[in-house]
Amino acid sequence: MPELRKDPVLGRWIIISRERSKRPTDFLVEKAEVTGGFCPLCPGNESTTPPEVFAFRDNKMSGMDTPGWQVRVVPNKYPALVIEGDLDKEGVGLYDKMNGIGAHEVIVESPNHDEDFAYLKSEDMALVFMAFKSRLNDLLMDKRFQYVMIFKNHGRAAGASLEHSHSQLVALPILPRMIVSELEGSLSYFNYKERCIFCDIIRQEIKQKERVVCQNDDFITITPFAPRTPFEMWILPKKHSSSFRRDDDASMYSLAKLFGESLRRLDSCIPNVPYNFVLHTQPLRLDYMEHFHWHFEIVPKLTSIAGFEWGSGFYINPMPPEEAALFLRESL
Amino acid sequence: MPELRKDPVLGRWIIISRERSKRPTDFLVEKAEVTGGFCPLCPGNESTTPPEVFAFRDNKMSGMDTPGWQVRVVPNKYPALVIEGDLDKEGVGLYDKMNGIGAHEVIVESPNHDEDFAYLKSEDMALVFMAFKSRLNDLLMDKRFQYVMIFKNHGRAAGASLEHSHSQLVALPILPRMIVSELEGSLSYFNYKERCIFCDIIRQEIKQKERVVCQNDDFITITPFAPRTPFEMWILPKKHSSSFRRDDDASMYSLAKLFGESLRRLDSCIPNVPYNFVLHTQPLRLDYMEHFHWHFEIVPKLTSIAGFEWGSGFYINPMPPEEAALFLRESL
Repeated sequence: MPELRKDPVLGRWIIISRERSKRPTDFLVEKAEVTGGFCPLCPGNESTTPPEVFAFRDNKMSGMDTPGWQVRVVPNKYPALVIEGDLDKEGVGLYDKMNGIGAHEVIVESPNHDEDFAYLKSEDMALVFMAFKSRLNDLLMDKRFQYVMIFKNHGRAAGASLEHSHSQLVALPILPRMIVSELEGSLSYFNYKERCIFCDIIRQEIKQKERVVCQNDDFITITPFAPRTPFEMWILPKKHSSSFRRDDDASMYSLAKLFGESLRRLDSCIPNVPYNFVLHTQPLRLDYMEHFHWHFEIVPKLTSIAGFEWGSGFYINPMPPEEAALFLRESL
Repeated sequence: MPELRKDPVLGRWIIISRERSKRPTDFLVEKAEVTGGFCPLCPGNESTTPPEVFAFRDNKMSGMDTPGWQVRVVPNKYPALVIEGDLDKEGVGLYDKMNGIGAHEVIVESPNHDEDFAYLKSEDMALVFMAFKSRLNDLLMDKRFQYVMIFKNHGRAAGASLEHSHSQLVALPILPRMIVSELEGSLSYFNYKERCIFCDIIRQEIKQKERVVCQNDDFITITPFAPRTPFEMWILPKKHSSSFRRDDDASMYSLAKLFGESLRRLDSCIPNVPYNFVLHTQPLRLDYMEHFHWHFEIVPKLTSIAGFEWGSGFYINPMPPEEAALFLRESL
């Protein structure tokens, strides 16, 4: 059973998932690139993954765990957390831990092995976002979960271990530190100004223009004022909304159009750059929030960034976001 | 002039240091390994670095910027922050920024090009820590600075761009988020318990034994209860002390003995593993603290850790710290 452990000073939760490795030197071994060989995420190989928990199918006659799907969601075969069991919260002296209960799922974004997420047709990418929504709404029913983290590792340097385009979802019985800090920061602004800080950011960025990458009626992509890495981008809905899972399907299409364009602009600036994106949305158990605003953060993984910065939370960024936005605007 | 920028939601400060790169694709280029060629940190090449700001010399007759030193501190030739100028704090709409004023120095840990920090003699490593102390006490005089971050990137994957063993120091006019969070967390524990949380951690670890790597009369090395990576280690003074720069020179020798042993144990478990260490100590302008406790955090940089985790602040660690401590204890 994996374990969730809380750092007593920072309040940061960590998953200890011991199944994954054994000897010390195993941790140094580079992951083998999956090349040409067998792909468990391809149509026809459905039986090699755990049974699907959700799918969009263009062939309405096709059955579960058979080809005919456009987007398919399956439990991770090597989950960091397990779905069965009780939380069993426990104090160990001054430390806190609980059983590593949670869901760990893989969202297969396309049946085509060589598809690049950035180049999906908007209507196909919209299905991926609708799958996110559907899973969020389904996992909401499980009262053990506080937060669902949805993210994508694109490229090996960003942590992807399978070539076939996919994103991941981890349902957690705790709130990750990242979200706690964002909620605190945005609430403290709201208490002072009685306005959502993200709405204010959007207004200011539209007026100042220099950090806007692209926008449409519903969404905007900016390079944030204080980015961790060159070409970091945030995608936000223009209309206030704290909860991704409550937004309608029409907006998912609009999001897909802008998301795809943003990633293609990035790819055009730095071809094949590895990146991670993370959905930041409100916790499952809290009411709709006036002070918080869902958004995606896209963080390129650049090899010239020192390891130190990731470890300390303190970042030195060699590229001003205004320059990055200019490159991105002129890239397509 | 570099810039310091604050993320308005998280309160996280970022350095934008534009000098370092130009075209988008420059960020993808792997840093060339320095091999065999010219080393600016070697004795005899002192004139190729900016003039030294501090040195320990075994040849007392040797002059500044000439050979004869054991530890030498020089300004970084490519500083992320600059020492001359005013802070000029400024609001830009809802954003905050200030001039990138600060010191960025390189601590050359040995005159020998091939020296590995972990294998320095204790009396030589003690000089490195005394150099840290001396720089901290000197930079304290500059009222613009709030915090001095001292860290080491060991190995190319951890961000080292020069082979010759060295650590770095960045004096900042702000408090890094990492320290703010630690001060808040430890103060909240102190307010409740009226005890230092780190002192309590040390007491509990000594009693439980399972996460202790090694110890001597003055210091202890543990694998923390909720580590971010396999083989993460913390080194703490057993006696309460919030401020590294106030500890006496005798304790620096004792620290060096345990620090070296800890790194050699790590190296024996995972040969040549890249790592970062960061000194966590109290801010310059605050009084001695009953609730905070200085320490070093050593974080190995392991290639099998997904990029996602560094970007999100949310960690999945495949090795329980109890197992890591066992490997480390049995390694020498």
